[in-house]
Amino acid sequence: MFNRISIVAPGLLGASLALAAHDKKLARSISVYARREEAVETLKQKSWCDLATSDLDDACRDTDLIFLCAPVERIISLARELAPRLTGNPIVSDVGSVKGDIVRFCQQSLEGKARFVGSHPMAGSEKTGMVNATSSLFEGRCCFVTPSEQSDPEAVRQLIAFWEAVGSEVVTESPDNHDEIVAQVSHLPHLIASSLAAFLSSARPDAVRFCGNGLRDTTRIASGDPKLWTEIVSQNRQEILRALDAFQNELQSLSASIANQRDFEVLQRLAEAKRFRDEL
Amino acid sequence: MFNRISIVAPGLLGASLALAAHDKKLARSISVYARREEAVETLKQKSWCDLATSDLDDACRDTDLIFLCAPVERIISLARELAPRLTGNPIVSDVGSVKGDIVRFCQQSLEGKARFVGSHPMAGSEKTGMVNATSSLFEGRCCFVTPSEQSDPEAVRQLIAFWEAVGSEVVTESPDNHDEIVAQVSHLPHLIASSLAAFLSSARPDAVRFCGNGLRDTTRIASGDPKLWTEIVSQNRQEILRALDAFQNELQSLSASIANQRDFEVLQRLAEAKRFRDEL
Repeated sequence: MFNRISIVAPGLLGASLALAAHDKKLARSISVYARREEAVETLKQKSWCDLATSDLDDACRDTDLIFLCAPVERIISLARELAPRLTGNPIVSDVGSVKGDIVRFCQQSLEGKARFVGSHPMAGSEKTGMVNATSSLFEGRCCFVTPSEQSDPEAVRQLIAFWEAVGSEVVTESPDNHDEIVAQVSHLPHLIASSLAAFLSSARPDAVRFCGNGLRDTTRIASGDPKLWTEIVSQNRQEILRALDAFQNELQSLSASIANQRDFEVLQRLAEAKRFRDEL
Repeated sequence: MFNRISIVAPGLLGASLALAAHDKKLARSISVYARREEAVETLKQKSWCDLATSDLDDACRDTDLIFLCAPVERIISLARELAPRLTGNPIVSDVGSVKGDIVRFCQQSLEGKARFVGSHPMAGSEKTGMVNATSSLFEGRCCFVTPSEQSDPEAVRQLIAFWEAVGSEVVTESPDNHDEIVAQVSHLPHLIASSLAAFLSSARPDAVRFCGNGLRDTTRIASGDPKLWTEIVSQNRQEILRALDAFQNELQSLSASIANQRDFEVLQRLAEAKRFRDEL
């Protein structure tokens, strides 16, 4: 159990973390930093929030574990702001969906002040904000913990224990491996869903009339926040480009099989896809 | 109300049609043809089936409306077999997911014997077979009715009334327009989902460890029957190739924006995709 856990920026993930930590009794007290005063007022009504404040110093004083839950582009600057204020060498983590740059810069900024280890819970949703938070958000979901060679082993151990306590299936990978994996299994599917929706938007603007469940499922994640996803693309550009390129080769090869009436190849590919999908 | 409706081949769609017609009292009697004797025995237990038989003549005698619910590649040959046996100029329709060739060949085979008008209810599922049939399968779903210039207007009117009575939202399109539309809104999403699954199957065979809901949604339809989908590809080859080609251009253009760090273009594209998806 932690003495205090601090949540910086209570969106869907941050507020769900606080809720889960409260429900599972993982901390004696939970403090939450929010930038806007309305958010602070809302937080003061919540049973899971022991201290709500718009003062970063207050939120992160005498704490054991800090989660930076701001958007990806804001995490690095938050770590820089936090560094001079921290005492007691707390563990600092984040919930950003890319890890390479975040881990490198946060470790550097916090060196000697705090022990940074990156996290990435794969528990996002097209529903965002504190209003959709739930303590069960992480249950049964994959959560990456991404230590580097410089990480403090005890911090890594405690962070993994925390994620397991809120119900996550923890996968430990280096920050760069993480970025390659999520480019393939998360960012690529998002860009494919968005490209399909963007294509249909121009080719078939009345598609809503003909829409079956297949199209609805395949494009669902295209409803995600465009700004957030543009940031993710910018933070994981090289891995995303590699994944897009490999996928385009796959699609080109399928097109060639179809064009050349090699239906047996089409069948093989669809069968392999089904085998893989049935395992998910 | 029809005097008799005949269902040829009671899979998911055929059996659901019979169930819905029974529940909504759309026919005085419902006859069902199944090839296999076990299926006939099962059908004999069903309250919604007045006559179950493996004799095509018996199933289609003195009937007003016949639905050919066999796989796409079998529909044309079924129409050919049926032609010499029919009396009373019934309406014949089908539930195949491509329409151009089916409508041309079935109209030709049945000319002077029956009035063929194609249908395509967009109510498929990765769950197949009579065991998953339900009378509500068509409720609120799009159903294409695809008359050609030769179609009998009264047959078209009665067929549309039937689909509306089982709860479908009917869209009337020419067979060739239909094939272009479904290549874009149904066949393309399927091939994209399958290509994504096939790509990950080779690039990231352990993806199940990292799988979020986004990947699950985006690849869900890749679980469809590979044989059935290979047939659909073969029947709608040209339209599918055109749709794949246009989608590849879309993806290529997104890749170029990402590679050239034109993040504003990425944002615009994602925003347009979200706007379209939110409407579905």
